[in-house]
Amino acid sequence: MDTSKRPETMKRITTKALADEFIAAEVSKIQETVGDKKVLLALSGGVDSSVVAALLIKAIGKQLISVHVNHGLMRKGESEQVIEVFKNQLNANLIYVDATDRYLEKLRGVSDPERKRKIIGEEFIRIFEEEARGLEGIEFLAQGTIYPDILESIKQAEGKKAVKSHHNVGGLPEDLQFALVEPIKLLFKDEVRVVGEALGLPHAMVYRQPFPGPGLGVRCLGAITRDRLEALREADAILRDEFDKCGLGEKVWQYFVVIPDIKSVGVKDESRYEGWPAIIRAVNTTDAMSATIEEIPYTVLHKITARITSEVEGINRVLYDLTPKPTGTIEWE
Amino acid sequence: MDTSKRPETMKRITTKALADEFIAAEVSKIQETVGDKKVLLALSGGVDSSVVAALLIKAIGKQLISVHVNHGLMRKGESEQVIEVFKNQLNANLIYVDATDRYLEKLRGVSDPERKRKIIGEEFIRIFEEEARGLEGIEFLAQGTIYPDILESIKQAEGKKAVKSHHNVGGLPEDLQFALVEPIKLLFKDEVRVVGEALGLPHAMVYRQPFPGPGLGVRCLGAITRDRLEALREADAILRDEFDKCGLGEKVWQYFVVIPDIKSVGVKDESRYEGWPAIIRAVNTTDAMSATIEEIPYTVLHKITARITSEVEGINRVLYDLTPKPTGTIEWE
Repeated sequence: MDTSKRPETMKRITTKALADEFIAAEVSKIQETVGDKKVLLALSGGVDSSVVAALLIKAIGKQLISVHVNHGLMRKGESEQVIEVFKNQLNANLIYVDATDRYLEKLRGVSDPERKRKIIGEEFIRIFEEEARGLEGIEFLAQGTIYPDILESIKQAEGKKAVKSHHNVGGLPEDLQFALVEPIKLLFKDEVRVVGEALGLPHAMVYRQPFPGPGLGVRCLGAITRDRLEALREADAILRDEFDKCGLGEKVWQYFVVIPDIKSVGVKDESRYEGWPAIIRAVNTTDAMSATIEEIPYTVLHKITARITSEVEGINRVLYDLTPKPTGTIEWE
Repeated sequence: MDTSKRPETMKRITTKALADEFIAAEVSKIQETVGDKKVLLALSGGVDSSVVAALLIKAIGKQLISVHVNHGLMRKGESEQVIEVFKNQLNANLIYVDATDRYLEKLRGVSDPERKRKIIGEEFIRIFEEEARGLEGIEFLAQGTIYPDILESIKQAEGKKAVKSHHNVGGLPEDLQFALVEPIKLLFKDEVRVVGEALGLPHAMVYRQPFPGPGLGVRCLGAITRDRLEALREADAILRDEFDKCGLGEKVWQYFVVIPDIKSVGVKDESRYEGWPAIIRAVNTTDAMSATIEEIPYTVLHKITARITSEVEGINRVLYDLTPKPTGTIEWE
């Protein structure tokens, strides 16, 4: 039997009862497979890896070793949330690596988006490898593969145009190839969320909007600098906060801030103030192939603009990206 | 008597009748002053120089020699309008200089805004000087000085902070210092417009929104290139066209497009398409010291975005600048 094919008889998990049933079955399977061995997991804090972590913690407790690499390109408060939920609340065996300096050093002066993505991906593999080598008795590697990833791989294998390569731990050297544990690989995204909530994960973590693997790195356009990255993180947090306050956070599919590497003249406290513009992107899509912008009310736009320009060091303008996809892509690079 | 001080008894020119009275008086004065001599005028196509040109043509006909320098940084159709109105309709003695190549050559690779402004201003003086030297019998120089310019100069002379230096022909060498003819120097802007309409100038020319001396040069951010400048001109023309169609053209104080020197990824005709973003600026102000943005309806924004991204080569995104002044200035550089 092909275990990578979702059986046609499998019910869509839409309720807590169905989720609990799935969880119970997977917990048994994991316990049977893993026994008393150890499992390693790269825990990004995204929905998929978080649900896998919670599932494994339920099944094998501290036999799961989760590694969270903070590449310095996380959104505000995200690494802190991973620590709070997994270490403090779920008592997980969590290794936290603050690799901010290391990433920013590697990325210094690199402005080409493809090079940036490559460095961010490769550096992650190197750090994960270093951590894995320091551990003993690991026999399994858990991954947050979900069913759309599998469908996408099949499509790619069939020679169709690849849209974007997946961010997984596929680049590990041969002597670090473990047996895979992929407990949610037959689930669709909406099912992953239902399972996540049934496992007791916070709503905000489970319904977190999609976030690219390279994180804020592809939203801090061109060559990343620490000050501009920090401005981006703060501006993005204000956008999310204001969207949550007015109900847009639940409504809009994806929204974030982008900061290009240009400055313009402006005025703060009656003096000339050169700053970067913060660009707001807020789009809705059903298939990610096309997208429309959210018609954010001007009252909300004025409030966000006032907060970002007054609270964030280095920013003097706020712009709203009006471009649907096509002709714009959702991300800027 | 100080001829640079508006008499307290002078009535505000608000009607055609008052304008006609003013015109008749100035025509006599000009004829008396100039006699059969020649007058030179730098005709930018802005409201002030256009009204001065029309007034002088009425008074002395072909004794006025107008020089229109197209620095390649004009908005779409502007130099053409100057030729149409003055050469074709008013039968003016007009020298048209297409200095586009010369300006773009001088500006190549120059990204500093102050340097750009300086080059644009100085080059104008050089070209005007060259034209003036080729002419004989010129004894007068006409200028579109208006009363706010005089008030501003007095303020500056009193040691107050200069906001922006005026764009006039003050840089000419000593042997080219003519006697000045400044027929509208006691008028406020609204009066200049009433006089302009009474002189038969087109409404669009007389109510043209303020346009900086360096033209599109300060809206094609950073180092100007021919292709990006052309994209800016086209995008700006679309914005003006759509604003006129929906009535915003008469309502909004100043509106224009800015194109920064950055590209982002996008999609056109199902292929990857890297392009510049076009930034829309549309502000209202009463005193130019502070400004608010116009709340352009989304229906209009969608239409402008669709037209710019589909009609303009090189542009794949449209952004709306949400920043009031402060913290943004009206122009970007």
